[in-house]
Amino acid sequence: MTDFELWLALPAKEPDKACRQAALQRQQQLTKPAGSLGQIENLAVTLASLQASEKPNVDRVQITVFSADHGIVEEGVSLFPQEVTAEMIRNFSRGGAAISVLAQENNAQLSVINMGTINKLESLDHVDDDRIAAGTKNFLHYAAMTEFQCQQALLVGQAHIDKLHNSGIQLFIGGEMGIGNTSSATAIACALLARKAQSLVGPGTGLDADSVKKKADIIQASLDKHQQQIGSPLRVLQYVGGFEIAALVGAYIHCAKVGLPVLIDGFISSVAALLAERVCPGSQEWFLFSHQSAEPGHQQILTALNARPLLNLGMRLGEASGAAMALPLLKLSCALHNNMATFAQASVSRQ
Amino acid sequence: MTDFELWLALPAKEPDKACRQAALQRQQQLTKPAGSLGQIENLAVTLASLQASEKPNVDRVQITVFSADHGIVEEGVSLFPQEVTAEMIRNFSRGGAAISVLAQENNAQLSVINMGTINKLESLDHVDDDRIAAGTKNFLHYAAMTEFQCQQALLVGQAHIDKLHNSGIQLFIGGEMGIGNTSSATAIACALLARKAQSLVGPGTGLDADSVKKKADIIQASLDKHQQQIGSPLRVLQYVGGFEIAALVGAYIHCAKVGLPVLIDGFISSVAALLAERVCPGSQEWFLFSHQSAEPGHQQILTALNARPLLNLGMRLGEASGAAMALPLLKLSCALHNNMATFAQASVSRQ
Repeated sequence: MTDFELWLALPAKEPDKACRQAALQRQQQLTKPAGSLGQIENLAVTLASLQASEKPNVDRVQITVFSADHGIVEEGVSLFPQEVTAEMIRNFSRGGAAISVLAQENNAQLSVINMGTINKLESLDHVDDDRIAAGTKNFLHYAAMTEFQCQQALLVGQAHIDKLHNSGIQLFIGGEMGIGNTSSATAIACALLARKAQSLVGPGTGLDADSVKKKADIIQASLDKHQQQIGSPLRVLQYVGGFEIAALVGAYIHCAKVGLPVLIDGFISSVAALLAERVCPGSQEWFLFSHQSAEPGHQQILTALNARPLLNLGMRLGEASGAAMALPLLKLSCALHNNMATFAQASVSRQ
Repeated sequence: MTDFELWLALPAKEPDKACRQAALQRQQQLTKPAGSLGQIENLAVTLASLQASEKPNVDRVQITVFSADHGIVEEGVSLFPQEVTAEMIRNFSRGGAAISVLAQENNAQLSVINMGTINKLESLDHVDDDRIAAGTKNFLHYAAMTEFQCQQALLVGQAHIDKLHNSGIQLFIGGEMGIGNTSSATAIACALLARKAQSLVGPGTGLDADSVKKKADIIQASLDKHQQQIGSPLRVLQYVGGFEIAALVGAYIHCAKVGLPVLIDGFISSVAALLAERVCPGSQEWFLFSHQSAEPGHQQILTALNARPLLNLGMRLGEASGAAMALPLLKLSCALHNNMATFAQASVSRQ
């Protein structure tokens, strides 16, 4: 087996059942009616089990935005011109983007990994250059990437998580930026869920109804063209995916293999999460879902993952912004779990 | 007119329309697809208009938990014994309750005001003693309070907000603690919305189905008994309310009169908000709604207020805990609004 195959074959780690039980018991002792903190209680219990700790903690959080260009943009599937991908990488680097502000407010570390912009970029603070190619190929006509490129992109995600895990990061948030990438994510989701493009497509950054229809037609034509080639999740990724999506998948899978909890962002990230689960069953145990996107297909992805996200605020920006918005809920759930008094400690009577 | 009547007659302030327009325009300039931050954009725009500022800010937040006992507890409407009200006030004071932890994590100031526990309490840190009586009377048989007591309680809320407003607080969060107070809040809501108790009642801290049915019967019998007396919102408050609910109503109304934004908590707080709006029309312009409670009647209160809360996490604790959980969303919305780069600043191309 190649190194890549050896890595793929490693199973997802299992969360700690004893810590889960201990956390559930502790929740019953805290000075509140049983269950009255709702999903916030579940969150603390899940984090305790994932971190194998009685006192879960998300003080050290890494946010990484994987970024790349997409050949399918030639077909007019996005409202924004393709140069915006590189321009936004510069904006992330200088602190002006939504995720820059959210990372700073959350005291989280922000990195950007350039997986494949059309043009090579100058050296930028907080931006790593892992460019695989000058964007993917237009998947209406060709495979988006070669098998080797797809493996390379997955391994960028894997290596990134390895480094973070060894540095003591307690929670990973992955994000993406790439003009055209809702088309790629929609195509992946259609292939994995055996749906027609029409049933999963959405406006992305803000297409009107006619353009959404055209986008669906292009995605469906692409799926039809590659039908014989996309019989496995990794082949789907290779044929209609993107470099930043593949890196996200590699990162998510490796989080599950090493046991690092992940807070998943919106539509594109959830598609990457679904792909990770299909490639490495059990991965999704390590995924917490932050928000329900305004992108209409997101609900079906979440349903396929049996996921109930924390927020539903009509967000549809990507960049990990929805996950960063939900991060305070994780921090507060840990603080409540760890710091509230028990009935006994506070001498409060029980029902 | 009495001082109380003079105060009541003051109208709610109007939010600043020019700041709202300026904030809307700024949101269109920020480096993200228009509307892609969903409700988070609206939140920043609303806060800009309420604070009459181009740069809204919620760094200085006050959380106040009003607390009192309820005579209706004699009828067995709660799962917890009545002494828990006083015990929880001590728990708030010592930092062991959910809201204590949440206030600390949010860097918010926490105060507790004892509006009427059964017994007088010893002196406690962060707890003010404004006890009006040893709990309300059992409203199945009597008016919960006298007209004078009701005015006293409203004015405790008014005076509290006056002090906060002068000290530069930017956002007010009110909470409540009082064994039996979902019964009082449900009775108020039924009277204001002309509903039967059965359609609004819920389990509160965790009653089983039979006990919920009994609670509904007691509330309905109380409403029937006082039917002739509860022709105005303030009479409803006097006859079936609670001291802590009246103080919340007074606080909310005064926030609207002086122009201090409020983040509303769950079921009981929303009933107080509805009462505030009925007493002083236009008050609700100053209210942001934090979360949808698991208490089933809450949705109907929110609908009556045309409110769309930020969170829906199955919480049902009270104490202002849902509002404290949503507070980071307000902070992040302000940070994004104030600190993101514009398209021009970041040299990012537009659609």
